[in-house]
Amino acid sequence: MFFEGSEKKVEIIVGSRVNLMDQPRDFWSQMVAYAGAKIISEISNEDCKAYLLSESSLFVWKDHLTMITCGTTTLVKAVKFFFSHFPQKDIETFIYERKNEYFPHLQNTNFFSDVKFLAPIAEGSSYRFGMPDEHHLMLFEMDKDCTPSHEDVTFELLMYNLQGDAKEILNSPGHTIDQVRDLLKFDSIFPGFQVDDYLFQPRGYSLNALKGTNYYTVHVTPEEVGSYVSFETNLDINETVKHQLSHILEIFKPESFDVIWFRPDRQVPDLSVPHYVARNRYQQALSSGYTVSYSSHFMEAGTYQSATKMEGLQK
Amino acid sequence: MFFEGSEKKVEIIVGSRVNLMDQPRDFWSQMVAYAGAKIISEISNEDCKAYLLSESSLFVWKDHLTMITCGTTTLVKAVKFFFSHFPQKDIETFIYERKNEYFPHLQNTNFFSDVKFLAPIAEGSSYRFGMPDEHHLMLFEMDKDCTPSHEDVTFELLMYNLQGDAKEILNSPGHTIDQVRDLLKFDSIFPGFQVDDYLFQPRGYSLNALKGTNYYTVHVTPEEVGSYVSFETNLDINETVKHQLSHILEIFKPESFDVIWFRPDRQVPDLSVPHYVARNRYQQALSSGYTVSYSSHFMEAGTYQSATKMEGLQK
Repeated sequence: MFFEGSEKKVEIIVGSRVNLMDQPRDFWSQMVAYAGAKIISEISNEDCKAYLLSESSLFVWKDHLTMITCGTTTLVKAVKFFFSHFPQKDIETFIYERKNEYFPHLQNTNFFSDVKFLAPIAEGSSYRFGMPDEHHLMLFEMDKDCTPSHEDVTFELLMYNLQGDAKEILNSPGHTIDQVRDLLKFDSIFPGFQVDDYLFQPRGYSLNALKGTNYYTVHVTPEEVGSYVSFETNLDINETVKHQLSHILEIFKPESFDVIWFRPDRQVPDLSVPHYVARNRYQQALSSGYTVSYSSHFMEAGTYQSATKMEGLQK
Repeated sequence: MFFEGSEKKVEIIVGSRVNLMDQPRDFWSQMVAYAGAKIISEISNEDCKAYLLSESSLFVWKDHLTMITCGTTTLVKAVKFFFSHFPQKDIETFIYERKNEYFPHLQNTNFFSDVKFLAPIAEGSSYRFGMPDEHHLMLFEMDKDCTPSHEDVTFELLMYNLQGDAKEILNSPGHTIDQVRDLLKFDSIFPGFQVDDYLFQPRGYSLNALKGTNYYTVHVTPEEVGSYVSFETNLDINETVKHQLSHILEIFKPESFDVIWFRPDRQVPDLSVPHYVARNRYQQALSSGYTVSYSSHFMEAGTYQSATKMEGLQK
């Protein structure tokens, strides 16, 4: 059984005349349904509402939202629903991201059909970070000049092909949510956050966490074929957080990982991690005012492994 | 304008009651047409006929054939045509390979639909060498035990994202076939071969070469997006040929390359190349008696590059 953990993501920033937190839960339920997902649970504080979805997460602040969906969801349909409820002049920034998938032929759409679908809603520019035949990020942004606030940073860490204990525990029959919490120890590395987590059956784990306007979110797809973990936060990446990232990599031991950074300035911190080779590094200034950086990191090959024998393909 | 250089490949070995070289050219023209390609030209000697195709190459020996097709060809349809003309008991070995593409969504089929299509013709086993989200090889072989001859070696070198002079010359308007020959200097590194080469308009270059039962073949797709070169031979890779391979890599300066080796024994030569990091190494024994090895090699990242802006996606 294969599940595509790799995600589509949308970020929308609205003008000051709109307060997105005033929208009722039913509005967000409908929007999520357009993507082909469901709301599982919710936490909130004065600054943010965080919805845990059947396929990833939705975060709603007063002036912006971030929606992340995995599997075979159709996130652009949710975007169309959103745009049909707000006049375009109230939308300051709209960015749509799509990571390369493990198995693109199982998807309902691809990035190229997605941006065509978006054409009547928003005209914009498309970028590819990386080579199309390797790990890469496709990014679309609506053409509208903007200046993000100084604190507006997003950090995404995408981990592929997990190794070691974590993968074993996350795939073991009957494992409990407490076992997963003990394994991840996110409470200790990100203290003071309100946490909402969920263990899917028979496997899979999602977590949303809030502290004021800050969030972090984790989605784990531990399956033997296509194992994947995404971690995302708007905490700024200073030396302390870099240490926390090493901790996350140490838990999941991915064979490869990608880093995506949105920053309001052009200063992209250097990221070098022991045991990993940097395969590529891209950096691009967007009209929305962000500088986006993307880098891929791989473990060097060891000895020869066996090929993967695939059963049942001719049935 | 994008052209997919990445290839599908079939190898078929027949029993001693069949001599494939007795088949008329019209038979091969029809077979090639089923894949969606055409024969452009032909060379031959007592041991082999080599057809240069509009999309890659077909080599026919008395007891086996190798057909390689790129672009959006449907090689499995050509296989079906072949199988409809020879009883299955005369077919000793049938192996179908498909490399990851740059843009799989532009293809007519994928490996999974290909092996389903092949099910009524040949039951067999499928393997994946490499991770599905990185460079990888998909391989299908008909289930039939076999013992290849001692000299039966195939070496494939697949080069991606060319850099430097070669790419510039191969993309320059009005470049001539003599300029390409001067650039590649294959005559000097593989002396004594009968060569048939072709320069496509406005760009693209193919070469078939024969010397007794030995061949080598080169296909160059130099386009800015998705540049690709494949080199394949049944010459055994001893220290001398390793030196020639360094020469080929030095000409094309690919950012990454993959190596596929079919050998009748389990001794896979070590391959390390200066300036490249080995990303992965796979090795698999097949029921047809070959040991297949696959490895991916990458240049380490330098400084940050700009993302690729893609025009016209919303039109």
